[in-house]
Amino acid sequence: MTISALSGITVLDLGQAFMGPYCGLLMQRLGADVIKIEPPQGEPYRRPTAIKGVEAVQFGLLNAGKRSLCIDLKTDEGRTVFTDLAATADVIIQNFAPGAFDRLVGVDDLLAANPRLIVASGSGYGSTGPRRDARAMDLTIQALAGVMATTGFPDSAPVRTGPAVVDFMGGAHLFGAVMAALVQRGTTGRGQHVEVALFDAIFPSLASNIGGLFDSDGEIPERTGNRHGGLGVAPYNVYKTADGWIAVLCLHDRHWAELCRIMERHDLVDDKRLSTNASRVKHMELLDRIVEEWTLERNSAELEVALNEGAIPSAPVQSLEVLLKDPQLKARGMFEQHRNADREWWTFGSPLRLADSPPPAENVPARLGQHTVEILRQKLMLPPERISELTATGAVIGDLPVGTVGVRV
Amino acid sequence: MTISALSGITVLDLGQAFMGPYCGLLMQRLGADVIKIEPPQGEPYRRPTAIKGVEAVQFGLLNAGKRSLCIDLKTDEGRTVFTDLAATADVIIQNFAPGAFDRLVGVDDLLAANPRLIVASGSGYGSTGPRRDARAMDLTIQALAGVMATTGFPDSAPVRTGPAVVDFMGGAHLFGAVMAALVQRGTTGRGQHVEVALFDAIFPSLASNIGGLFDSDGEIPERTGNRHGGLGVAPYNVYKTADGWIAVLCLHDRHWAELCRIMERHDLVDDKRLSTNASRVKHMELLDRIVEEWTLERNSAELEVALNEGAIPSAPVQSLEVLLKDPQLKARGMFEQHRNADREWWTFGSPLRLADSPPPAENVPARLGQHTVEILRQKLMLPPERISELTATGAVIGDLPVGTVGVRV
Repeated sequence: MTISALSGITVLDLGQAFMGPYCGLLMQRLGADVIKIEPPQGEPYRRPTAIKGVEAVQFGLLNAGKRSLCIDLKTDEGRTVFTDLAATADVIIQNFAPGAFDRLVGVDDLLAANPRLIVASGSGYGSTGPRRDARAMDLTIQALAGVMATTGFPDSAPVRTGPAVVDFMGGAHLFGAVMAALVQRGTTGRGQHVEVALFDAIFPSLASNIGGLFDSDGEIPERTGNRHGGLGVAPYNVYKTADGWIAVLCLHDRHWAELCRIMERHDLVDDKRLSTNASRVKHMELLDRIVEEWTLERNSAELEVALNEGAIPSAPVQSLEVLLKDPQLKARGMFEQHRNADREWWTFGSPLRLADSPPPAENVPARLGQHTVEILRQKLMLPPERISELTATGAVIGDLPVGTVGVRV
Repeated sequence: MTISALSGITVLDLGQAFMGPYCGLLMQRLGADVIKIEPPQGEPYRRPTAIKGVEAVQFGLLNAGKRSLCIDLKTDEGRTVFTDLAATADVIIQNFAPGAFDRLVGVDDLLAANPRLIVASGSGYGSTGPRRDARAMDLTIQALAGVMATTGFPDSAPVRTGPAVVDFMGGAHLFGAVMAALVQRGTTGRGQHVEVALFDAIFPSLASNIGGLFDSDGEIPERTGNRHGGLGVAPYNVYKTADGWIAVLCLHDRHWAELCRIMERHDLVDDKRLSTNASRVKHMELLDRIVEEWTLERNSAELEVALNEGAIPSAPVQSLEVLLKDPQLKARGMFEQHRNADREWWTFGSPLRLADSPPPAENVPARLGQHTVEILRQKLMLPPERISELTATGAVIGDLPVGTVGVRV
């Protein structure tokens, strides 16, 4: 029988919002026992949403399948429960504000007590450099790290990306760092502290923009709208169609030749001005006009079929609502609705597909503290009386029904 | 002595552009021997850039530190060299167009010949679903996967992100998948095929946008400019300053109270309309006006100091040129210039910081085929005569000086 890649690995997931919880989610989907440790008021996405006042869909998206352990880490007894658990765990994930985790428990102490432990710290700027103590979130990193300056149309203001790409880029890297540390532990028998900064994780994605800046000595606009980030490829744009927009690009000369054929512009195939990418880049405005004249007369779906047949990279711009019903998204199991007797929820699939690592059969979002008693019994072998004492003092909190926790933030 | 996390791991990196090469880069920075396998014309970033006609800066950014092996995989002998090497390797990375790698060499055959091998496939849509055969690039996935629809101002067209976030999100996930497979191999002794689709990898970053769509029953605009993706947090925006823009957000009530104090708007602290995030969200327009009135009168640097002192998440919008000289970027070693007798180049640092995995001392970009002879000797123990034969037929290509390879694409 095949077991999953991370079977037998225990993770204490102290993650907040996206970076930490996404790292934990990727581990859970590969078979790790991920224990989400929450404060008495629950994690932010358990709290009522701004408009409807219900539990946010984000909670299930990022946490279904994790067990819930509710500890008040502001109490001495709560912290002791946590450090006792850390002594039995393989991985701790934390992305608290700078310095907060170290004030709570010392990383060095945790590693001394459990030399096989991997402590994974996510932060805005990392533990070094002049900004190490600054508060950071997806939006502020987008501002500082050139994402906003390079996003948008040349004649309008800088704009952030719609999705929280910085937080998730950070989470994906943090997962990778934990896995690499597990690989190293396989050789050395020792864990270690690993860290990923959001600022570092998003930076390499500017490669094309940096390329354009260098190649043009800063002459090209910083924001290139829907054109290539370095204005280094043409055609490369999003074109209006009769009923929407379509993204089209020609990476190779053969794409361009094929596009001319599809557009029935046989006159252009042998046009010397357009025969190489370097020459097409010089005539970018002309090319964009030619392509858009053709797309404007046709529907996106019709264009997509024709371009796909010619193996030219293209896709219609889909709205979020249409995307959530997209057949490809469904086929890949990336966004799934589930229900049981208590509730219904949506959850993400994992982008990591390992042929020999079957995903968990069922990923149910836990109620706050649902597994508190079970975990203290299993992992720390605490007797019922001791668990009752801890519950009585508020150091830990047991199972609470959905909807009875949380205050509006 | 500490050795690196991936010491002793050999990677055959067939990556193209960003997704595959970034995965290889992350492995190289953790100590793997990454062999970049290139076609006779070199990888695309060796070819002259559109404007200056020099080797693109992207080549060094993503490939410095990898060895270069030049094979013509269109020849039978070239393919045999590749499969012989695959029998000695730990990991293969490939992100060719759909089906191309399987037409070249069968994944099942590779795994049968080397059961410890991990084959990592990156693609646009993955190997399943109705779009599995469609060509895809960063731009087209941004169009289809809701990134463009959610990026930009409500009253203007959808826009792609400036950085190639889809490609790099894919590369970071592909790295994570390879690491997880190495962890699993540590238990089972067996490798496997792993895959990551760009379409899957970018999707979870829409969590807030999906939250907003659900919470508002589709009433909020799809694109929210620089406001929160789900219009679920206020204040949360980018505000004009006397000399630029600054991103500011209040995630907690204490941030808001602190912001009121810094703005010297003590009258607002006890304003019931603004006491909780849910109520502030209802008065988003008002709040944005109040904050921007304050920021417009001050320089970004001055605002940043004040907001940092109050521990409020904020950061100025930095241009790409300013970013490349940013002290934090420098302190983190994320963008470094090097030179030797032959040339100068820039390369990325790795966002993955493992306390016990020292990065390579030096990362020099290889000339095309620089290590061809050395690798065939080391890994396949081929005698000089055989290497000469393979070179003579063009199945492999040895060292070529910088600038003598490549044609304009």
